[in-house]
This record gives sequence, C-alpha cells and structure tokens, in this order.
Amino acid sequence: MPDMITQRVPTLSPAGGAGCSVLSPATVANIVCGFDILGLALNEPCDELKVEIVDEPGVHIINEDEFDLPTEPERNVSGAALLALLDETKDIHGLRLTSKKNIKPGSGIGSSAASAAGAVLAANVLLGNRYSKEELVRFAMNGEKVACGVKHADNIAPCLYGGITLIRSILPLDIVTLDAPPLHVTVVHPQIEVRTSDARQILKQQVQLKDAIRQWGNIAGLVAGFIKHDYDLISRSLEDVIIEPIRSILIPGFDEVKRNSKEAGALGGGISGSGPSIFMLSKDAETAKSVESAMKEVFEKLGIAYHTHVTTINKEGVKVTKPQP
Amino acid sequence: MPDMITQRVPTLSPAGGAGCSVLSPATVANIVCGFDILGLALNEPCDELKVEIVDEPGVHIINEDEFDLPTEPERNVSGAALLALLDETKDIHGLRLTSKKNIKPGSGIGSSAASAAGAVLAANVLLGNRYSKEELVRFAMNGEKVACGVKHADNIAPCLYGGITLIRSILPLDIVTLDAPPLHVTVVHPQIEVRTSDARQILKQQVQLKDAIRQWGNIAGLVAGFIKHDYDLISRSLEDVIIEPIRSILIPGFDEVKRNSKEAGALGGGISGSGPSIFMLSKDAETAKSVESAMKEVFEKLGIAYHTHVTTINKEGVKVTKPQP
Repeated sequence: MPDMITQRVPTLSPAGGAGCSVLSPATVANIVCGFDILGLALNEPCDELKVEIVDEPGVHIINEDEFDLPTEPERNVSGAALLALLDETKDIHGLRLTSKKNIKPGSGIGSSAASAAGAVLAANVLLGNRYSKEELVRFAMNGEKVACGVKHADNIAPCLYGGITLIRSILPLDIVTLDAPPLHVTVVHPQIEVRTSDARQILKQQVQLKDAIRQWGNIAGLVAGFIKHDYDLISRSLEDVIIEPIRSILIPGFDEVKRNSKEAGALGGGISGSGPSIFMLSKDAETAKSVESAMKEVFEKLGIAYHTHVTTINKEGVKVTKPQP
Repeated sequence: MPDMITQRVPTLSPAGGAGCSVLSPATVANIVCGFDILGLALNEPCDELKVEIVDEPGVHIINEDEFDLPTEPERNVSGAALLALLDETKDIHGLRLTSKKNIKPGSGIGSSAASAAGAVLAANVLLGNRYSKEELVRFAMNGEKVACGVKHADNIAPCLYGGITLIRSILPLDIVTLDAPPLHVTVVHPQIEVRTSDARQILKQQVQLKDAIRQWGNIAGLVAGFIKHDYDLISRSLEDVIIEPIRSILIPGFDEVKRNSKEAGALGGGISGSGPSIFMLSKDAETAKSVESAMKEVFEKLGIAYHTHVTTINKEGVKVTKPQP
C-alpha cells in the first residue's frame, strides 16, 4: 500500500555506509498461565528494520508502512529504546531507523517489542556487539514503557533470545531460555481494539491464594512439559485461572475459539499477551491448519474481520539480514 | 527407649504369614517457593512400618515407639489411609499395622505422610500391587486429612514416588516427577511446636498479584533449574515472597539460620513444610556439614533444643525391606 506510506525523512547527512537490517519477530507473551514471565517467538510475521549510524545527534525515524506511528523518538517505541542505548554509548551521536512494520500495532503479538528489540539489536551489530543480550533487553524495555506504561520483558526476551523464555525476575533481570519440542502455532487476530493499558487496568490487584496455587502448579507443569518434551503435560498445564477469566471478556468469540480449536486437536492456548489475538499450540502443521479453519469459522459467524497466522516457534529471535552475520 | 514403647496389641488371630515391612522416608514439602505443589524425599530419617493381613475386620494398630499416637484407626494417620484402602478392597477384611516412627510428629518433615504412604504401600505389596501409585496417593491423603484437616499431597507424593515431585493439580490429581542434579540436604528441627493447622490458619487467603507473579517466576525457575541441572538457577529461584514472610515469624532464629547457612555455602532453603524444621540444599556433602554447624550454632545461642539431619535426596521413595521386592 505505497499510497499510505508515511515518509518523514529528517534532514540528515548521508550515513557513513554503516547500516544493519534485521527481521524482528512477533511474540506471544504469557503462554496462558505464565502471566508476565513466559513468552515465545514466532517465525511469522516479522518487522523489517534498518539502523544506520549518522552524524546528526539523536534518533531519527523513518516509517515505511501505513501505520502512521509517531516519529518523535521519545514517543516512538523503537525510538525510546534507541535513545536508551545511545545514552550509554558515548562514541556515537546519532542513529537513523527505517521501519517497515508487518506486525500490526495493538494486535497482541508483540508489535512494540519487535520494534524495540529489533532496533537495539541492529544498533548493537553496528557497535560490534558490545552489549550483551541482557543489556539489549534493558534498552528495549524503555520501548515497552512507551507502548503500555510498564517496563515488561515477556515479549522482548523471546524476541531477542528466540524460542521460549522465562523472565524469572525483572529486578534483578533474570532471563532463562527453555528448551521445547517442535510446536506449531496458530494465531487469529480479530480486528478489534484492546489497549494493553486497558487490559492491565481491569486485572484485580489481589488474587485468591487458592487460585495462585493452581496457577503456579500449571506454570511448573508447563515449564516441565516444555523441557521434558511432554506434549500431554504441556496440554494439561495450558490453563489460566487468574488472568484469562477477566481479560477474555474483552474478546468476542474467545470461548468458542478455544473450544473449537481444542476440538480440532490443539494442545491448548489462550489470549496472546493482552489480546485481542488468540493463539493455539499444536503438535503438527496439519492440526495447526485445522485450528486455523476452526478459528476463522467463529469470526466469520460473528462478522468480525480477522487475520490468521500459521507458523512455528522461532528459535533464533531477531535475525540479521544485512550485513549477513 | 524400650520403657516408653506403647504396645496396645489388639486381640487378633495370628496373621496368615503375609506381612510386608517398609522404610518410609521423611519429606520436605513446598521447597521454598512451591507452596502446596512441590516436595522432595529424604534418605533419612525413615519410619519403620509393617503391615499384615488379618482375619479380624478393620485396621489394628500397634505403636512401637514413644510417641503415644492414637491407635483408633479413624484418628490415626496410617489408620485412616488403610481404612480408605480397605474400603475399596473387598477380598480382605482386616489389616494390622506395626509402626515404629523415627520421624518425630510435628517436625515439619512429613511425619504423617510417611505413616500414611508407607502403610498403604506395604498393604499394596500384600495385595499384589493392584493399586497404582496415584491410587495410593489418594488413599494416603485421607491420613493427611486426619493430621492437618486438609487432603494435601505435597509430602505424600515424594514419599511414594521418591525424588522431587510436582503436584500440578489436586483435582484432578496430576503428579509429575522432576529430574534433579545431586543435592545434599541439611535439616534442623528446633524442638518447638508449630501445628500444621495453625501454620495454615495464619496465611492470608488473598495475595498481591505482583507477589504472585514474583512467586511463579521463581517456581518456573526452580523447576527449570532442577531439570536442567543448573545449580545457580536453583539457588536464585529459592525465594518465597508469599508464605515464608508470614510463617517464619513462628520459628525463632529463622532469619539467622537462613543467612548463616547461605554464608556457609548453601544454595538456599527455607521452612520445611509448615515448619518448624528448616532445610537447606547444598551441592556437596562437605557444604551440607558446614551448614549443619551453622544451624547448630544459632539454636545453641538461642538455648533451644534441636535435632539435625544431613542427608541426600531419596530417589526411590518408600522402600520395601521384607519381602525383598
């Protein structure tokens, strides 16, 4: 849709030839029972980002898509992340980001995390990989703060590390990568708006101890199921008694999507991040396609527009496409 | 202490020769952050139990120790568990249990679970192992109900399965065994009374969502650390922000024991079950002995009598000693 492209090219001196392009993947945060601690990276969709070192101080943003996102770096997710990186990096003064987003903002599959994580990883390549992945997570979390007011890392960590990640702790930051068996992921994005900040606001600040116990039993089961490659245990553990009962009321068709997907053979699934996307895990590609049909049927019947993705878990996270690593 | 032995031998016909003796191990429930879902079995101490099939209907209990536990089966932990088993078992009418407890009741290292689990496992051997381990857990949970009013399984499961166990769910019952690296366990039992029912009562029925999130991050980390044999991750994850801050006030010297044990090299630890015992995990036997010294010092200073155990994780659970399996 070239007619919708937002091109606000700042007046910059030509880049010094140094540029790094990346594909930054969508992610599914929470993975049903692991609110704020678990996330996984998807092979599709991915944002296309390019970062260049420039002489002009500050961060300069060029959007090459139809989303009309802010270009003031403080109000832009990638911008805030790059500003945090630039703040620590005394030997360069300016960065230019060219962004083409394929992950729709507000879809609930880590659009802001892809922008923030991809940008800082690309910048780090230009800096000779001087920052650790953990430091990149810290920079990128500044982008999440712009997006939803909270510095959470459950999308950023899988985006940067790939695979399935556990944020054991935010303060101090402690990220653990979890092995898992092959998993196919079906995502449906109903075209309704659920703002992350609203989805956070409706949560109760207190939970019943008995519910918390049930939840942490499931989290322990899910982590064990992933590492032990036990599909049955993964399936039994994909239950959320705390967040889903509250948030799912914001998503029309949620219960039916879940029921029909499981009937179609899905291991289980739920709200992706804060929604409105819903994701389901399956053991094989064929089942993941059947799940897609089951999902489509629900939103066709409801007359709500939607997008679907049928993909797998992305093991490497943000991928450098140029220069080739 | 033969002068203290309680011998209330019921008038029974001689046993038909069928008898099974077992060693039933102490266990540590919760493992710091896994309240009501995690537990591990110890190689020491163990109760010595013998079960025989007898003609007289019902359960008949002989105590061969100094603890003066009730012999009415409905009020006895082993008795209640055996009654539940007998209720399902139509081809035998009576069981006699001879019990010599080495795990002090009320110590917080699964004394009641050892009584209940050991008794039903021994009975099951006499019945040709007709019941699964999961069914034995169900029978034994009736014993826990006698002991503390709640049918919990976080001591019974490790006692029967050995190693480290996860109770993902009680209803339906879902027990998962977790692999772990070699671990040495130091336990100190200060001779003060903390009733399990009291320790449950002081807990708040509501918890802050932010605390629950921190807790389930630690649980996920602990499970991953065990299965991945990652001692550092185990150590970082041994943190309880929900139960320990409340229950530890019932245990004099708790904070000092914890601090000094970690200074002595322990990976971490906390209250065993509902206390008053405190346990610490270490990577090697030498450290576990240093931790014991650190614990002793605290209770010597406080002038509180104590027992200690330095042991390892029991991989097999209840052990049949006669007939040899």
